[in-house]
Amino acid sequence: MRGAVLYAPGDIRVDDRDDPAIVEPTDAVIRMAATCVCGSDLWPYRGIEEVDGPSPMGHEYVGIVEEVGSDVRNVKPGQFVVGSFFASDNTCEICRAGYQTSCVQRQPGAATGAQAQYCRIPLADGTLVATPDVPPADLVPSLLAASDVLGTGWFGAVAAEVGPGKTVAVVGDGAVGLLGVLAAKQLGADRIIAMSRHESRQKLALEFGATDIVTERGDDGVAKIKDLTDGLGAHSVIEAVGTQESMMQAIRSTRPGGHVGYVGVSHDVELPGQELFFSHVHLHGGPAPVRRFLPDLIDLIWNRTIDPGKVFDLTLPLDQAAEGYKAMDERRAIKTLLQP
Amino acid sequence: MRGAVLYAPGDIRVDDRDDPAIVEPTDAVIRMAATCVCGSDLWPYRGIEEVDGPSPMGHEYVGIVEEVGSDVRNVKPGQFVVGSFFASDNTCEICRAGYQTSCVQRQPGAATGAQAQYCRIPLADGTLVATPDVPPADLVPSLLAASDVLGTGWFGAVAAEVGPGKTVAVVGDGAVGLLGVLAAKQLGADRIIAMSRHESRQKLALEFGATDIVTERGDDGVAKIKDLTDGLGAHSVIEAVGTQESMMQAIRSTRPGGHVGYVGVSHDVELPGQELFFSHVHLHGGPAPVRRFLPDLIDLIWNRTIDPGKVFDLTLPLDQAAEGYKAMDERRAIKTLLQP
Repeated sequence: MRGAVLYAPGDIRVDDRDDPAIVEPTDAVIRMAATCVCGSDLWPYRGIEEVDGPSPMGHEYVGIVEEVGSDVRNVKPGQFVVGSFFASDNTCEICRAGYQTSCVQRQPGAATGAQAQYCRIPLADGTLVATPDVPPADLVPSLLAASDVLGTGWFGAVAAEVGPGKTVAVVGDGAVGLLGVLAAKQLGADRIIAMSRHESRQKLALEFGATDIVTERGDDGVAKIKDLTDGLGAHSVIEAVGTQESMMQAIRSTRPGGHVGYVGVSHDVELPGQELFFSHVHLHGGPAPVRRFLPDLIDLIWNRTIDPGKVFDLTLPLDQAAEGYKAMDERRAIKTLLQP
Repeated sequence: MRGAVLYAPGDIRVDDRDDPAIVEPTDAVIRMAATCVCGSDLWPYRGIEEVDGPSPMGHEYVGIVEEVGSDVRNVKPGQFVVGSFFASDNTCEICRAGYQTSCVQRQPGAATGAQAQYCRIPLADGTLVATPDVPPADLVPSLLAASDVLGTGWFGAVAAEVGPGKTVAVVGDGAVGLLGVLAAKQLGADRIIAMSRHESRQKLALEFGATDIVTERGDDGVAKIKDLTDGLGAHSVIEAVGTQESMMQAIRSTRPGGHVGYVGVSHDVELPGQELFFSHVHLHGGPAPVRRFLPDLIDLIWNRTIDPGKVFDLTLPLDQAAEGYKAMDERRAIKTLLQP
């Protein structure tokens, strides 16, 4: 099969690779219907996260079950399934509490790399959710979004305790931030402030339900959020970047007693204890337990209530993965869908 | 009047000072029934927090209202009142959300220092809560505890989402940690693990409702908590120290999806973003909005359901404040009550 491999920062190639096969009796192998490039793939691509030899890439996937191990009961060959970036048994105490990405059996969901024609998925019963039927082609991008960025933006909103009566600010205008806006709208927020200075992203934020756009960043961005909230700060802030600046911007934009939901993977972030203490915010986040939300998200997509697939503004054949990474790295594309 | 003043690290003296008077029409002046030394008073006493010239000390107080300003409506001379370390209007949006210690009008509650015979309290209507009557002498220590350490331990438990079915761990065996144990018991926790290696404090923890004692600290303490919780960590952890070690011990003792309530004032704490991200914990804390809890805490004390005054294991006349500080600094006393 063909599959994307990162050799070194900036050096992504699509190679001929071995077809994956069932290894554990709880595995499934799926034939990819669509896959994509994640903002977090850019960390190793940019050399900010170390690459330890050639690495098969990708962890977002939807596809048709090709084969299942002997212990798999919940999905079967021919079904269209959505999974997510960590595999989970969905039965342990941590999974039952809704934290499948900290499952006691947690492991990479796309064991062999999702930017490929086929992929082995461990713990298939706990990890994969079948759609009601094989979807029409126009729903595939949205279902693919559910696999990571939608579920992540959604978790950010849930972690930030978004709900009716709340003013929500979203730090980060990547796919996750934009889908945080969509989630906030679905969860009933009164007012949704998207922080973005890119016109195409502002436009999508407004389409997804943003009521205000703030173009300032850092302290100026914080001041603007305060201006818009009687000097108090937002009730709920979704942080979808993962840098020191964005985390501090999120914390400082939140009113005392408010909630920060942070889903940007933290890189070189150190939170000053004393400032956090006196900020009085609630802080919650981490790797989004997408599996918790998948059944509901699939429903919302299936009945066409939401269209998160709009975040894919570039679609390329898998073989052009390198261009897909480059376009995202240069912020020419919000998110690249790859067709295997 | 007589009042305690910190001149330099380790140098606390009780001086003759001017009697406080009404300054703002929203002020009250109270005659102290009892006051005490706080763990946080030890930070400047130890020179860890800078002392900027001679500083009147103390912020925990109960007493009789002596005089009120012309705008005060809710309390009147002759009433016995409990206040807390920050004054708040109790009417702004932040107060109404239960975060009185971040009130938009926030200011020190004991404006002139509580370790004294009299004290001026700003925003008296929002800050002071009258007891049903002048209390019998044996209730005074418990009402004094409500002014800070009980309310702080209680907030730690609430911030850690303590409740029925939960296993709770408490990091810190000072008065706040011990009253965190008491709060956890009142809030219905199933299991309460007190982390302490001091026999007298362990004894009080058990009296307050602890079910287990862990004497290990740091990584060993974390390992012990994991042992006691099927390898998962506690649901709720109350952090009542405020150091880097204690914060990390609290975060690492909490299961994914669990809650850390931190009420130890953070000193030189830097939280590593990536570890926090993957810990999946909820983090909430800060200066306890004691005012939120005061009416309920006064009830529980008045009807003798709880006896938080037990944390005072040393009672001295105000004039011996220096010995009171010393005994706490050397951990010979858990908490010193001063009689004005």
